[in-house]
Amino acid sequence: MRMYDIIEKKRDGEELTRDEIRYFIDGYTKGDIPDYQASALMMATYLKDMTTEERAELTTAMVESGDQIDLSAIEGIKVDKHSTGGVGDTTTLVLAPLVASVGVPVAKMSGRGLGHTGGTIDKLEAIPGFHVEISNEEFINLVNRNKAAVIGQSGNLTPADKKLYSLRDVTATVSSIPLIASSIMSKKIASGADAIVLDVKTGAGAFMKDLEDAKDLAQAMVAIGNRVGRKTMAVISDMSQPLGYAVGNALEVKEAIDTLQGDGPEDLTELCIALGSQMVLLAGQAENMGEAREKLEQAIASGKAFEQFKLFIESQGGDPAVVDNPSLLPQAAHKIELPAEKSGTVAEIIADEIGTSAMMLGAGRATKESKIDLAVGIVLHKKIGDYVKKGEPLLTIHSNQEKISDIKERLYASIKITDNDQEAPPLVYDTISQ
Amino acid sequence: MRMYDIIEKKRDGEELTRDEIRYFIDGYTKGDIPDYQASALMMATYLKDMTTEERAELTTAMVESGDQIDLSAIEGIKVDKHSTGGVGDTTTLVLAPLVASVGVPVAKMSGRGLGHTGGTIDKLEAIPGFHVEISNEEFINLVNRNKAAVIGQSGNLTPADKKLYSLRDVTATVSSIPLIASSIMSKKIASGADAIVLDVKTGAGAFMKDLEDAKDLAQAMVAIGNRVGRKTMAVISDMSQPLGYAVGNALEVKEAIDTLQGDGPEDLTELCIALGSQMVLLAGQAENMGEAREKLEQAIASGKAFEQFKLFIESQGGDPAVVDNPSLLPQAAHKIELPAEKSGTVAEIIADEIGTSAMMLGAGRATKESKIDLAVGIVLHKKIGDYVKKGEPLLTIHSNQEKISDIKERLYASIKITDNDQEAPPLVYDTISQ
Repeated sequence: MRMYDIIEKKRDGEELTRDEIRYFIDGYTKGDIPDYQASALMMATYLKDMTTEERAELTTAMVESGDQIDLSAIEGIKVDKHSTGGVGDTTTLVLAPLVASVGVPVAKMSGRGLGHTGGTIDKLEAIPGFHVEISNEEFINLVNRNKAAVIGQSGNLTPADKKLYSLRDVTATVSSIPLIASSIMSKKIASGADAIVLDVKTGAGAFMKDLEDAKDLAQAMVAIGNRVGRKTMAVISDMSQPLGYAVGNALEVKEAIDTLQGDGPEDLTELCIALGSQMVLLAGQAENMGEAREKLEQAIASGKAFEQFKLFIESQGGDPAVVDNPSLLPQAAHKIELPAEKSGTVAEIIADEIGTSAMMLGAGRATKESKIDLAVGIVLHKKIGDYVKKGEPLLTIHSNQEKISDIKERLYASIKITDNDQEAPPLVYDTISQ
Repeated sequence: MRMYDIIEKKRDGEELTRDEIRYFIDGYTKGDIPDYQASALMMATYLKDMTTEERAELTTAMVESGDQIDLSAIEGIKVDKHSTGGVGDTTTLVLAPLVASVGVPVAKMSGRGLGHTGGTIDKLEAIPGFHVEISNEEFINLVNRNKAAVIGQSGNLTPADKKLYSLRDVTATVSSIPLIASSIMSKKIASGADAIVLDVKTGAGAFMKDLEDAKDLAQAMVAIGNRVGRKTMAVISDMSQPLGYAVGNALEVKEAIDTLQGDGPEDLTELCIALGSQMVLLAGQAENMGEAREKLEQAIASGKAFEQFKLFIESQGGDPAVVDNPSLLPQAAHKIELPAEKSGTVAEIIADEIGTSAMMLGAGRATKESKIDLAVGIVLHKKIGDYVKKGEPLLTIHSNQEKISDIKERLYASIKITDNDQEAPPLVYDTISQ
């Protein structure tokens, strides 16, 4: 077999066989196939696409390029959730205790990563004492005992995907549905998930700006999952404006606590119920979506979800007093309100600009070496469709810096107020189950 | 400017600007742009094509990536000829003295290269004493005095093309019309041609197997040439079977001499007249194709073309006695006839198989290190459409090896004899002048 022939085949729009895909992934991971051949294949794939069969084979080959987490010692069906990323996305903090409280085992492997705010682990570390440096054995015991635990990423997962992603990043081949779909799915599968729920974001703050692209990506991932024997469902959700009100680490923890107590933002609550219902269904803890939803709503109303969160925090060393009293979370030195410059209806809150502003305050990492300030961030007071009076605060900036005129300017520029009517955008555009 | 954006633009089918093409070619030549980005761009170009404007800019950028030969000291319009390559292609040996004899200056820079037989220089070196190791000054003086001279390739011509071709060769991006066209044209232009005549071959023995592809390539090159101010014309000629009868170095020299004396194969003679007429026209030595053709036919009939060849050989140290008596050329030890196994009409002579057989005899280089045997090769006695009786020789193998049963087998397999009628294929499919 020759890499040349594989490139030529894909260039001509033909379907690659399982063996050809394996040959490429194995050879590239080992360094036997050079970057320049891989990038030619990636560009050909970008322009000629891949069949569902090819996408599944690529995913499996990438899974098998490195270590795979064995979660078989955990009882029940392990359902993982993945979000394609957005601004103020507090869902994981809410979902993990929420679905765990109705019997779905949540064995979450999480990272820190780059972005507007920290990763799930960074956020949880806003609670004093909470830590993820636990052994694999302890992790599995915790999930079996409490139904939920979080551990830091370890092992050499999907090295082929890592190498290929770095190459795609510099050769304009990232935004390809088959390549994104197999990249995401390979990571989830290597992490040991039996079933997967996907939150595919669309809008200005999302990777997939366009709704049709988001649907295509969701369908591609669901098809891959189902073909490789991992039941997969997806929700297409809005990311034109930030989700919920809070953007920042400790701020999102507080928002998650509010939500688990039934006092959270409407959109965040609804999205957590929508994603959680799919997780409950896939875990076999409900017969249908209606039953799943009811269970989750009851878990919030009864305080079961909130108690589950406290148990989860406590069992990983976190101070449960903070959960009861979120004012004990890290606080920023300055809370600066941004007053509306005119009266009207909020027409636009550009999600990625809000995210960038939060990062500029110190809430996220611009580079791997950046240190996160857990206290800082932004709390919106208005969302799209809300009426605001001139002088009324649009949002509050939680900052440890005093000079933030550039951030204020950026925030003003990213929130548009109109004299006309403006409806709130839909929260969930679609759900995809096969 | 960023290479990433250039790749992305071409990926999306947009037209690259002059500056973007320059940025890529300059950066890639210098090594600032890595192979993996160049190969992504080449694959995007392969699949998304280039406009005539882009092709011309790419050609010019490659010309300017290295040295350019200055032929301005030679009087008249220097017309170069390029063939896309075939089997038994003796045209250059005939054309150079033929057009020189009617006043067209021929300043030929030639190479050795790989292939079924040697390059033009290898072939000419079959004449004892002939050499191309002459100074640039001598070369220019010879062309001004005798109208024809050949010199070996020197200087760092089109390094961008060389580097890019090596990369395309291993990334399945060679067979792209814009990339082939700009590669060929850049070399001709850097070699100092004022005008260019192209012989684009089509059929089994050609790079362009398909007639439509050959036409597309010819049109692409003519368009580039005319856009960059080098008048260019093209002939689309048949290479389903070898051109002429001889395939081999000394054997082709003899065939060229025969042709210059009016005793050559009909197809070779006709193609030389067709290509030569375009050269004469572009050099301004005739008003129209009819006049050009007449001049060339007279040059052969009057012996002027043959005398020109003798002068050319003698002035570069070759023994003119060999030109008068080609039996003094290197002779193979064995002349083995291949008798027809049945009577019938020749339906097929697969050109590249004949070429490979010649190379196996030692007529061409398989690798850069191979040594050529100038004496060996194949002389056909029949061509497509000819009737042959069982036992009558199809061809003669000129060999210095005794054991050639594998070559015989290959030759038998590549010549098909039919009981039905079979017409000879057309020699010239088309001529393209703008």
